[in-house]
Amino acid sequence: MITRRLGGLAFGGDYNPEQWGEAVWKEDDALMREAGVNLATVGVFSWALLEPEEGRYDFAWLDAHLDRLHANGVAVDLATPTASPPPWFTLAHPDALPTTPDGVRLVHGSRDTYCLTAPAYRAAARTVASALAERYGDHPAVALWHVHNEYATLCWCSHTAAAFRVWLRARHGSLDALNEAWGTAFWSQRYTDWEQVLPPRATQWHRNPGQSLDFSRFFSDEVIAAYREQRDAIRAVSDRPVTTNLMLPGYQNVDLWALGREVDVVAVDHYPDAPGLDAAADVAFAADRARSFAGGRPWLLMEQGTSTVHAGDRVLAKEPGEVLRHSLGHVARGSEGALFFQWRQSRAGAEQWHSAMVPHAGPDSRIFREVKETGAALARLAEVAGSVVTASAAVLHDSDAWWALSSDGLPSSELDYHPALRRAHRALWDAGVVADFAHPEADLSRYRLVLAPALYLLSDEGAENLRRFAAKGGTVLVQHFSGVVDGRLHARLGGYPAAPLREALGIRVEEHRPLRRDERITLSDGSHGTAWSESIRLEGAVAVASYTHGVLDGSPALTRRRTAWYLSTRLDAVDYAALVGELLDLAGVRPALPGLPPGVEAVTRTGERHRWHFLLNHRAEPVSLPRPALDLLTRRRVDALPAGGCVVVREGRQR
Amino acid sequence: MITRRLGGLAFGGDYNPEQWGEAVWKEDDALMREAGVNLATVGVFSWALLEPEEGRYDFAWLDAHLDRLHANGVAVDLATPTASPPPWFTLAHPDALPTTPDGVRLVHGSRDTYCLTAPAYRAAARTVASALAERYGDHPAVALWHVHNEYATLCWCSHTAAAFRVWLRARHGSLDALNEAWGTAFWSQRYTDWEQVLPPRATQWHRNPGQSLDFSRFFSDEVIAAYREQRDAIRAVSDRPVTTNLMLPGYQNVDLWALGREVDVVAVDHYPDAPGLDAAADVAFAADRARSFAGGRPWLLMEQGTSTVHAGDRVLAKEPGEVLRHSLGHVARGSEGALFFQWRQSRAGAEQWHSAMVPHAGPDSRIFREVKETGAALARLAEVAGSVVTASAAVLHDSDAWWALSSDGLPSSELDYHPALRRAHRALWDAGVVADFAHPEADLSRYRLVLAPALYLLSDEGAENLRRFAAKGGTVLVQHFSGVVDGRLHARLGGYPAAPLREALGIRVEEHRPLRRDERITLSDGSHGTAWSESIRLEGAVAVASYTHGVLDGSPALTRRRTAWYLSTRLDAVDYAALVGELLDLAGVRPALPGLPPGVEAVTRTGERHRWHFLLNHRAEPVSLPRPALDLLTRRRVDALPAGGCVVVREGRQR
Amino acid sequence: MITRRLGGLAFGGDYNPEQWGEAVWKEDDALMREAGVNLATVGVFSWALLEPEEGRYDFAWLDAHLDRLHANGVAVDLATPTASPPPWFTLAHPDALPTTPDGVRLVHGSRDTYCLTAPAYRAAARTVASALAERYGDHPAVALWHVHNEYATLCWCSHTAAAFRVWLRARHGSLDALNEAWGTAFWSQRYTDWEQVLPPRATQWHRNPGQSLDFSRFFSDEVIAAYREQRDAIRAVSDRPVTTNLMLPGYQNVDLWALGREVDVVAVDHYPDAPGLDAAADVAFAADRARSFAGGRPWLLMEQGTSTVHAGDRVLAKEPGEVLRHSLGHVARGSEGALFFQWRQSRAGAEQWHSAMVPHAGPDSRIFREVKETGAALARLAEVAGSVVTASAAVLHDSDAWWALSSDGLPSSELDYHPALRRAHRALWDAGVVADFAHPEADLSRYRLVLAPALYLLSDEGAENLRRFAAKGGTVLVQHFSGVVDGRLHARLGGYPAAPLREALGIRVEEHRPLRRDERITLSDGSHGTAWSESIRLEGAVAVASYTHGVLDGSPALTRRRTAWYLSTRLDAVDYAALVGELLDLAGVRPALPGLPPGVEAVTRTGERHRWHFLLNHRAEPVSLPRPALDLLTRRRVDALPAGGCVVVREGRQR
Repeated sequence: MITRRLGGLAFGGDYNPEQWGEAVWKEDDALMREAGVNLATVGVFSWALLEPEEGRYDFAWLDAHLDRLHANGVAVDLATPTASPPPWFTLAHPDALPTTPDGVRLVHGSRDTYCLTAPAYRAAARTVASALAERYGDHPAVALWHVHNEYATLCWCSHTAAAFRVWLRARHGSLDALNEAWGTAFWSQRYTDWEQVLPPRATQWHRNPGQSLDFSRFFSDEVIAAYREQRDAIRAVSDRPVTTNLMLPGYQNVDLWALGREVDVVAVDHYPDAPGLDAAADVAFAADRARSFAGGRPWLLMEQGTSTVHAGDRVLAKEPGEVLRHSLGHVARGSEGALFFQWRQSRAGAEQWHSAMVPHAGPDSRIFREVKETGAALARLAEVAGSVVTASAAVLHDSDAWWALSSDGLPSSELDYHPALRRAHRALWDAGVVADFAHPEADLSRYRLVLAPALYLLSDEGAENLRRFAAKGGTVLVQHFSGVVDGRLHARLGGYPAAPLREALGIRVEEHRPLRRDERITLSDGSHGTAWSESIRLEGAVAVASYTHGVLDGSPALTRRRTAWYLSTRLDAVDYAALVGELLDLAGVRPALPGLPPGVEAVTRTGERHRWHFLLNHRAEPVSLPRPALDLLTRRRVDALPAGGCVVVREGRQR
Repeated sequence: MITRRLGGLAFGGDYNPEQWGEAVWKEDDALMREAGVNLATVGVFSWALLEPEEGRYDFAWLDAHLDRLHANGVAVDLATPTASPPPWFTLAHPDALPTTPDGVRLVHGSRDTYCLTAPAYRAAARTVASALAERYGDHPAVALWHVHNEYATLCWCSHTAAAFRVWLRARHGSLDALNEAWGTAFWSQRYTDWEQVLPPRATQWHRNPGQSLDFSRFFSDEVIAAYREQRDAIRAVSDRPVTTNLMLPGYQNVDLWALGREVDVVAVDHYPDAPGLDAAADVAFAADRARSFAGGRPWLLMEQGTSTVHAGDRVLAKEPGEVLRHSLGHVARGSEGALFFQWRQSRAGAEQWHSAMVPHAGPDSRIFREVKETGAALARLAEVAGSVVTASAAVLHDSDAWWALSSDGLPSSELDYHPALRRAHRALWDAGVVADFAHPEADLSRYRLVLAPALYLLSDEGAENLRRFAAKGGTVLVQHFSGVVDGRLHARLGGYPAAPLREALGIRVEEHRPLRRDERITLSDGSHGTAWSESIRLEGAVAVASYTHGVLDGSPALTRRRTAWYLSTRLDAVDYAALVGELLDLAGVRPALPGLPPGVEAVTRTGERHRWHFLLNHRAEPVSLPRPALDLLTRRRVDALPAGGCVVVREGRQR
Repeated sequence: MITRRLGGLAFGGDYNPEQWGEAVWKEDDALMREAGVNLATVGVFSWALLEPEEGRYDFAWLDAHLDRLHANGVAVDLATPTASPPPWFTLAHPDALPTTPDGVRLVHGSRDTYCLTAPAYRAAARTVASALAERYGDHPAVALWHVHNEYATLCWCSHTAAAFRVWLRARHGSLDALNEAWGTAFWSQRYTDWEQVLPPRATQWHRNPGQSLDFSRFFSDEVIAAYREQRDAIRAVSDRPVTTNLMLPGYQNVDLWALGREVDVVAVDHYPDAPGLDAAADVAFAADRARSFAGGRPWLLMEQGTSTVHAGDRVLAKEPGEVLRHSLGHVARGSEGALFFQWRQSRAGAEQWHSAMVPHAGPDSRIFREVKETGAALARLAEVAGSVVTASAAVLHDSDAWWALSSDGLPSSELDYHPALRRAHRALWDAGVVADFAHPEADLSRYRLVLAPALYLLSDEGAENLRRFAAKGGTVLVQHFSGVVDGRLHARLGGYPAAPLREALGIRVEEHRPLRRDERITLSDGSHGTAWSESIRLEGAVAVASYTHGVLDGSPALTRRRTAWYLSTRLDAVDYAALVGELLDLAGVRPALPGLPPGVEAVTRTGERHRWHFLLNHRAEPVSLPRPALDLLTRRRVDALPAGGCVVVREGRQR
């Protein structure tokens, strides 16, 4: 693991020295030492410098930076530069630029201007990755390989169409099978030749949902294939671990379960999209997802901002203390360090307003002081490296379900996926419970409670898996509009959800009744729902709460059969939290450190001989600790968490 | 008429057996019998199956289904499949795909992916229609031909440009006339060669309104020509009636008056866009339009949903009882039956969430039970077939005016057309009065009251027609921004509206004064207006109500000269209803059944010897009848309408 | 000057007789005399008539109109018709049509359908302008040349790309310099061949801000070059002055400082975008800008509407009296007349709803009566021609800053430019103070107070200029997010704003803290701010007001060092007005006529021997004058301004 090479947790960020000159490099060296930086990501956007014309490489400048960093005690996470092809490449290979569903070929002038399926691009990417790996495979500074950057660019061009067809042949075997899967008997869409099959480009009205879903699956596989090519080229000449960084919030173009299996360490980028407590909850949401995609193994926070909160049409600043608190929030949930984009705020270019470790204002600034504080804290936590985080509650997550919920023609625009997952995770976070994410077909036996929101698509295997989980006494909450289509997007017939799950839940959903925009209904237990309702028949379950109005008056809204619960509306946050709280009680899931007030987060990492309790106070007032403890960050005995402060306590582990 | 062949009213829906297999077909047979289905629309989306490659037909599967249906007592409304060309066709004829104003050629993958003006498409459509007609022209199951489906796809490609030019030559005769009509002296748009004339594609700023209007007229004519080609091909070999189904709400691409003259029976599709009482009013609005387009003759509700209310970004469910109530709402206003899209809810494809007669949940469901109830009711109403509905009030409707109100450069975005018609119809519906729609140039002598909302464009003939109507004592209400341009979109000079109408109204509108968004004004009679105001001079009229604020303070808002009224603002619904109520009184128009509470609808169909009163209770409480009556639906004597219930009463006609 | 030729102020408008016939022309002659029209803009949209096919000119019709106008005492502002190429031109030269960033080539059918960089277009424009100038260069009716109309059309085609490269070579000298300026080291954008450089077309994500800024600069230069070509062709054969009309509100495609230097008289078009007092303030805003672009010399209001207030999705009417009040509002601030678009409201075409001097309703109308009243008023003000308006307060304006604030990737969408300038100007207008606009690098010594809102980009020269201004005792208010990037969009390092200005202000801005949408903060002096806040360190300044919440609690919000003020948030209008009022007091700037109530505007024009005070009452009540005076408009002694009325008073000047 990288922490062994670093001798502790990773701390640092993207380092783009090519934007600066000699004098600044000297200052960088000094400031990195001052801040405790031990890992720098280099070369993410350097293709144009590394290969100024096709086939001619200029490594001299990079040699110098790597040597300098190494001499300064900073290891390097060396990036392949393939996320941003240089202008000469796109001029020579216009067919390797991405094309929109409308057929508009985008041009150079931003970043990510490549078509992942274009042979010229794939070849160029392999070649430059190989050249880098050959040059630096054994460089003592290199601790990690960073393939590409935030794979995300979709394309609908003719290369993509050709690749899509190859993928479809492999998946479906025959056109007959594809026709059956996509339901092409409807709307006269039956394909009689592979050449007729296209990506879901601009068309007259609704697109075929099966086609759209398969296109998402195809593109995810294509991303993974592109990653593998570079990874394998690197592995051929270097023994250092290889990864690629995933953009977490809303990152929908890749199945992260699958990608997680391909990287040596899961690395994620995380930028919250709301300030304050919401940002803290979002840190936990991202970190729990990252750890889950890593299969529970340690992972790495590759990017965060020192002062970047994306809030719609503006970028809010972080509050004092959040650089440390967010960093420790990630470490607490399994990250082996905390890295930032980027070391020094760009003077020019499209991200000159993206925050950095050294802001425009220079080192004499609040931000750089907080960066140093955070570097010092991480240095003191070297011992937690390699320890793990365990959870007894899980939220189900499946990219297929996410993609499926992007289909045209769904009955309501309020059938969201990502927000539904966040609401489920937030309810657990508010209750002080650390949660995993789990694939519906994964082994769930380690969990006592499983939440299944927005699981529109649920495969036969997934449905059987959930049935089995409940049958063995696991508590499960299935939420509205879940399990209604199978893995081919075919609707479940005879009543929703999928039969084995229906049996476990003891219900049959006969009819969906979307609520009107802004309609808010009351259930018999006084809770409130929006967006959705369903007509349910009890077939073994009891109604825990019922609808109280209109057609559904008296009809079950929330049901239970033994440990299997079904919720047919979108509860208000407070009511949903109460329900989840009740389920946690019933399932016997307890918070890591009970008795903490709201806004104080406690998470435990477990090593071979110790446990480390991370206590993060997101409140503006100090909070007393249950009992005095030695704080690893300050090496002092403390009996309270300061306002906005953090304490890490080591505890011996009874084995 | 089709009802003669069926022996009563039509009941059934679109039937797409190609989406299912043997076992389901068997169940279909049984369930259709159970539900009283006597008519199924077959083949709407079957081109890919019927003609799996160019020129090779496969009729065997369709033979089998038609024979099966026939054996089961279900007649067939046989569709030509031309609304959804198969993938092989679009691959072979990319020029037959539709192109957007931006020049984006859409691709296969949805439905309606054809360019109506492409010669290859038109030829293929004629050919497949002929082949079908030859095969099934005499089939005993076939009761009706259903050409295409919801003609709606616009195109801006070069085929369209060429066809547009041919149409323009025919309409205008010369380029000089076109230049004069379109006012090309402005903005240096004078055409000197036909080749210069284009469809209104993407351009720098406002498009020429004359060009846009003529393009709408051209496209409507093109639709009708395309329909005629198929109809004539069918008529050549079959004696069954021919129609095409019109999509009613907001269906703006075809002049339905013109299309109504071409079909053997007007057939419409109707999906309400709001729940509850609004849906009921919308049923009446659609049905009255359909009957009017049919020239007062019986027509056919070809599609509705068992549980489909399109409400913006979601599809709401229908309430219990609405399947029957909406169906009878259509029948009461002249439909010879009630059909649905579709028989069985699709398992896959883009409309898998569209409601159906047999839902995903299967026949053991509320929806199927209501379907059966509706089938039974229609069976008991066989005797009403062929009877008619008469009205003594009318709302003026002209596609030219609608299209004209879509012009660029109008003074306010609140100058709506379709909503204005709905408001006018709703005021009459709320008053219990059945209304026709009438073309401004039509014979209006059968009406006592005519409402003219949003009649921006009014031809010289139309203006003279309205003047004559008023001169003969007809009560007419002309509403704001009406009669301001002539049939070529040239503004009326010297004061609006068109001179003969101005004289009848006794006013001269000098100036339009659009109101600000959310501005609400008060008139002297306490009523309120939004969106619009006008500066009016009285030239023979009296002011019934005046403006009370600002520039227009004291100036006439609502005027009257004998039976000719002019309203210069958009009144609030309640005030507008009061005004329409007053006009009804003055005109001597009475509801079909006076004394009913709001939300109870009464409509009368008149046959040779009987009248049938349809009473529909849209309220949640029972309502007493004026006197006990024999209900044809239950064959029982009733003295009240149950909550949400329907009663149909036969009455002998005194001749 | 044109007023010498006219013998007074200009009055009239665009005249498009080609839309009408003989009878109307006769009426036009009479009505123009009745209204006092002395200048008509002819030929703006006449290319198709003037040159009905390439190289063949038809001048006969124009000869006749010019002779007729001349005979009627109406001088002509003769337009080159190049803003609207005729259909034959675009058919022959499709490459001369504009192309969007998406690559969509727009078509004929609107106006402004040309690509300014297309060689064919430029050649055709020069040729038709030359032909016109040769024909009419000496025509006695011609008083002014009107090149093109509202230059505004952008393009992203390959001609544009080529021209952009030529411009970039000239500006930057080398690719190295361009790479440095645009910061292409970031995102691997380094250019190695000029062919790689493109206009900022549709790309994957954020565009390079340097590229976008240079494209704006390039396009502005291209507009000026195109203008110059026509101007020089005209000057070669005519001695009449030459101008082009600028569209003022939001007109962002041309650097109006630069264009102002190229025209013989600055001519602007102005349409307010809100009714009432806002419209009056907008008149002053536009007029002060126009005068400033003219370098203080008289200018000309080339277009306004008699009843056109563009308010989002609708066009509101003007109130009675506004035709005169707006016209005098422009004249008071230096316009040598008041012209309208257009003389007679179009009967057809895309602007048939644009108001005009003679409306559809004809001369017997409120609008024409107000037109006549305005014509009479201007005739009585002939003596003010040539006089000037002086100001001792200025608002800084720089197109570079405006363009820069359109960059992708800025930290908030509320960093607006044009609205910020309007807010600054409005505060001065509300205080009764006439303001100039000034370029940041201009000589500011004539001003006592300078406001610098939204000056995101500030060159080194500009920063030094402001420092010098303050050092000499000038009062300056620099507002948030100003001075943060230099002329190449490179961020100022070490703290904002640019160093010399930072020193003058005595502050260092360390951090930007955008506020949340709808967040409203309170400062220590009770004022309120929205949109933005900053973390400031005092380095010589004092805090006049501080933040009172959160991170910035107690930190300076408004600072002052001697006469140099810095405001780090966007104050509410009332608070901002109070601050500007205080600065006016401190700077010793007094309104033209103190003591007037709000809504009464007073502006002074100064001639060689007289001063003329324009008093405009925008209120609905009469207002007493400080002392009785002779009103030039009525030639009567008045002691009050009527409600909504205007008075102009001449005063002898003490020299």
